[in-house]
Amino acid sequence: MGFIVQKFGGSSVADAEGIKRVARRVVDTQARGNQVVVVVSAMGDSTDELLDLAAQVSNAPHAREMDMLLSAGERISMALLAMAINALGASAQSFTGSQAGMITDAIHGKARIIDVSPHRIRTAIEKGDVAIVAGFQGMSRDSNDITTLGRGGSDTTAVALAAALKADVCEIYTDVDGVYTADPRVVPSARKIDTISSQEMLEMAASGAKILHLRCVEYARRFGVPLHVRSSFSHHEGTWVLPSPDDQTTIQEGEPLEQPIISGVAHDRSEAKVTVVGVPDIPGKAAEIFGIVAGAHTNIDMIVQNVSTHGSGRTDISFTLPIVDGAAALAALGEAQARVGYEAVDYNEKIGKLSLIGAGMRSNPGVSYRFFRALSDAGVNIDMISTSEIRISVVTSADLLDTAVRAVHAAFELDGDAAATVYAGSGR
Amino acid sequence: MGFIVQKFGGSSVADAEGIKRVARRVVDTQARGNQVVVVVSAMGDSTDELLDLAAQVSNAPHAREMDMLLSAGERISMALLAMAINALGASAQSFTGSQAGMITDAIHGKARIIDVSPHRIRTAIEKGDVAIVAGFQGMSRDSNDITTLGRGGSDTTAVALAAALKADVCEIYTDVDGVYTADPRVVPSARKIDTISSQEMLEMAASGAKILHLRCVEYARRFGVPLHVRSSFSHHEGTWVLPSPDDQTTIQEGEPLEQPIISGVAHDRSEAKVTVVGVPDIPGKAAEIFGIVAGAHTNIDMIVQNVSTHGSGRTDISFTLPIVDGAAALAALGEAQARVGYEAVDYNEKIGKLSLIGAGMRSNPGVSYRFFRALSDAGVNIDMISTSEIRISVVTSADLLDTAVRAVHAAFELDGDAAATVYAGSGR
Repeated sequence: MGFIVQKFGGSSVADAEGIKRVARRVVDTQARGNQVVVVVSAMGDSTDELLDLAAQVSNAPHAREMDMLLSAGERISMALLAMAINALGASAQSFTGSQAGMITDAIHGKARIIDVSPHRIRTAIEKGDVAIVAGFQGMSRDSNDITTLGRGGSDTTAVALAAALKADVCEIYTDVDGVYTADPRVVPSARKIDTISSQEMLEMAASGAKILHLRCVEYARRFGVPLHVRSSFSHHEGTWVLPSPDDQTTIQEGEPLEQPIISGVAHDRSEAKVTVVGVPDIPGKAAEIFGIVAGAHTNIDMIVQNVSTHGSGRTDISFTLPIVDGAAALAALGEAQARVGYEAVDYNEKIGKLSLIGAGMRSNPGVSYRFFRALSDAGVNIDMISTSEIRISVVTSADLLDTAVRAVHAAFELDGDAAATVYAGSGR
Repeated sequence: MGFIVQKFGGSSVADAEGIKRVARRVVDTQARGNQVVVVVSAMGDSTDELLDLAAQVSNAPHAREMDMLLSAGERISMALLAMAINALGASAQSFTGSQAGMITDAIHGKARIIDVSPHRIRTAIEKGDVAIVAGFQGMSRDSNDITTLGRGGSDTTAVALAAALKADVCEIYTDVDGVYTADPRVVPSARKIDTISSQEMLEMAASGAKILHLRCVEYARRFGVPLHVRSSFSHHEGTWVLPSPDDQTTIQEGEPLEQPIISGVAHDRSEAKVTVVGVPDIPGKAAEIFGIVAGAHTNIDMIVQNVSTHGSGRTDISFTLPIVDGAAALAALGEAQARVGYEAVDYNEKIGKLSLIGAGMRSNPGVSYRFFRALSDAGVNIDMISTSEIRISVVTSADLLDTAVRAVHAAFELDGDAAATVYAGSGR
């Protein structure tokens, strides 16, 4: 008997058949003696359809209204899932983000959770019901307005509820069997990872592995929530993402404890590169620029500052950021050009980021050599580099990214014996 | 400068073009110096699409989940309308039923309003914003669950807000130019009515005139809210539905005050006839039967009890009710058969109801004669009859209903000079 939070993405509930399949899995889980909370995304393409409608009525929809609009998507999927569970003879109730106590700040479109008060969820569970909760949405504390959490929001809802309700595990259902050593769509020989530490998963997510969103992994790590990433199309064990290495031995008891240095290769096409050209090379200018970009609610990823090459006391500052934030960042920078005193801004969306993740990378000097050698042998030019304790990331041109991923994956002997199973679609 | 509540049905906001057209009208209304609250239904067929999805996952969806599902429809239309208004340079905010303070009982699918606390609407209006409110939905006082108001719910939302906010007028936008002397789709020569008293409109609505729902007219009459029924496709004056005859002369000042005895002919195909056969003819049995039917949350319309003809102290009781409530009423009656002691139940959906409405009908004995003469000349058999101060209704077979409507309309010389303008679609 356990307490399980299950999260199903949009591809799992894309149509009535998908909803009924998810309902059967939820009912099975409850029938095995578990208490179950289900977090669900909007159905398949329904978010895109709503975005398309919004674009038809407005060039620049207000963020508050966009959140109101998009939050309708989960309302539909969660009500249908509750109906389908009830039709199987179990008892389910659906709850909006606000009813589930997901309290956020008021940054529409990318709200952050500031409190979780799932009283109604707890009551429903204690009554023996399955509680279905809308992913991706909440209510702002100050204005009582509907907010959405942005990309990865449904995963984050699930982990936040699991933490608040002290669930034993948060199961993230997706369209692949777990976390792979590289995206199986790019590297068919990629191997499924059985267990990975939260920290390594954090680096994978930060590096663009799309299977789990960075925020969700951060939240799980901070609150010690074990994640189980698995397929909604099969009953195979997936990948366990565990808060600390100690927990791994406890849970995987009896299994060979294999801890490879290298966990996997992640890649990301969702970022753009901004270069601010001719910045006066005086103290405080970098801070000023990043303050301006942060003011546009943009998350900066990699940063490179070149040495002064203009001979005129000027330097270039390059950084990457999500493509979706590009326009806002450029507008904010443009407005401040005179004040900052830079010469120009260069913007490039045709980039790709590749990262190698593994514990103990720093203490293995051979790793960097092998990494850059593989890229060089594959003819891939490197544009930016950044590293951490357990990660090396590089930016390349977008068209060489797949080649680079396969080259690095092979160089670290990550290729498995069998081809990975990939199912269709992708969630929110 | 006035305070106007405008209600737009699903056919007015069926697509992006419709939403933009409504936005322009709302902005025009505000630009002429008015404060504007807009109540909006779900887009076109979207409710039917949601019902279809529900049917695919469950044979008997729970009412609570159905309300959660259906309430997503207005959330989409209202957010899009707010975006479209904002895109025109005005400022709009959308509000769910719960945010607008529409507090209801907990009868899902046909909740009744028990309180209206539109604090947020008032604040938005005072700030100069247009407030867009989801029609058809509210929140139950005891459980804080999402409820829907059932058929005519959006009109009722609009009138309830107009009453609570003390608006000068509640404009109901629809796909015809106003209230006609008969449904222009059945009687092309029907004439538009310029003004009609709330009481007559009440009888028209109760008799099946679909342009305004009974509940909305009842609410408007009780709280003295003037209604203006008009087309969202034109700028013609529509029909004013006024709380008392005194108000008519005030508002229609300068116009010829024409007050015909007969207002119009209404018809209704949405009811079924139930006959409970062989009911013991002892006191209290009729009350018992109607108690059982009321327990199934069914609104009974016409009732006829025949005299005992069985010679065995038994009688038949017939009544009409909405077809959508038929199954629930039959189930409740079936369960109680032994207790009530009736012999059988007969159920017929192939009926139509025709009503003639007009002030002073009782004091004009010639009216009934002319009415029944017209039906008889047209070869229409009458199945049930009921009358009020200002209405005569009959039930006929469904296939003769159109013939009957045209015959009565002609007999009372209601035909106008020009054919009525009818636009496509119909609202919620």
